[in-house]
Amino acid sequence: MSTLTLHEDPCSGNCYKIRLTAALLGLPIERRFYDIMKGETRTPEFLAEVNANGRIPVLQIGEGDGARFLPESNAACWYLAEGSALIPEDRLAQADCLRWMFFEQYSHEPNIATLRFWMRFVGEANLLPEQRLLVPHKQAAGEAALVLMDGHLASQPFFGGAAPTLADIALFAYTHVAEEGGFALERHSHIRAWIARTAALPGFVPMD
Amino acid sequence: MSTLTLHEDPCSGNCYKIRLTAALLGLPIERRFYDIMKGETRTPEFLAEVNANGRIPVLQIGEGDGARFLPESNAACWYLAEGSALIPEDRLAQADCLRWMFFEQYSHEPNIATLRFWMRFVGEANLLPEQRLLVPHKQAAGEAALVLMDGHLASQPFFGGAAPTLADIALFAYTHVAEEGGFALERHSHIRAWIARTAALPGFVPMD
Repeated sequence: MSTLTLHEDPCSGNCYKIRLTAALLGLPIERRFYDIMKGETRTPEFLAEVNANGRIPVLQIGEGDGARFLPESNAACWYLAEGSALIPEDRLAQADCLRWMFFEQYSHEPNIATLRFWMRFVGEANLLPEQRLLVPHKQAAGEAALVLMDGHLASQPFFGGAAPTLADIALFAYTHVAEEGGFALERHSHIRAWIARTAALPGFVPMD
Repeated sequence: MSTLTLHEDPCSGNCYKIRLTAALLGLPIERRFYDIMKGETRTPEFLAEVNANGRIPVLQIGEGDGARFLPESNAACWYLAEGSALIPEDRLAQADCLRWMFFEQYSHEPNIATLRFWMRFVGEANLLPEQRLLVPHKQAAGEAALVLMDGHLASQPFFGGAAPTLADIALFAYTHVAEEGGFALERHSHIRAWIARTAALPGFVPMD
């Protein structure tokens, strides 16, 4: 495979997903750091060369003139895992893996990751009025996502069944640090067992 | 393929994506209607039998005891399109197709679809205070998504290049009705040309 470079901020769980996928697959990956709190992903250079959407993570494949840039964390994980057991081959199982990855980006990340960012990095006292109004809604929606996950994990060790897939990696990233956003994981025993199982996978690397 | 049934609300672009994918592929699909404004996807029966997350669309595959239920619009499209030209085979092209589908769910739908829902179906006068505060943010973020799309389409007819993929279907659903949410498509000539190209695809069906 071409040289892989992850454009990332280590505080981001979305970036961590890609690093964890690469680690579980034994793929070496270089890291280039940006500080999103300082706007380093909104510079003209970043927008022109790395991602016109001004966001990290971006997975860079190759170097120099032939380099290609792949934004969106779950798409980058998909690229890395193609052909591996982290993506089920069965038609319905593969679509169901994506189902949890879309759930993560739509119903989980905007609530759990955003509250973690606000509480741990921005600081509750510094929130804008419209952010402050959204806190109860995001707490309820994030808790609903955790309840759904806990129910699903009651009958199987990983989201896709007996073996880990990208669905687990995508959901692990912000779930295992959900308490930093004010969520109480002690209520969700199946999630806690799944976090322990995921963290015990061969090749696992922790978040920075 | 087993009998396909779409649990949907015809006013939802997320539901339309699945119907459009099936139509472009020539797959017959049955439709079962719910009114989300009346809470019909939050009944105990729906939560127990169709989707514990209380959302539509859900693609039902098969009938009776063996029926399987697949939530998340883009995952359902993936299931239908597996093995077709709507999903690129090339590793990077396939990941890039997913990149636009994740972009759609994270950066496009929560802004453009939500404003359309608020303006057309809820009514601006009926918005809650926290929704009202979010309108300018969603207008700006939705417009940023359209600018990014228009720039990408300046150099190619479809999101993945010369031929349509699921990325186009996912983004078409709410983009072609973005004006119902207050967005001005006349500024985005490449998007308008792409809408016309997509609507001219063989098998195309309009939104209800």
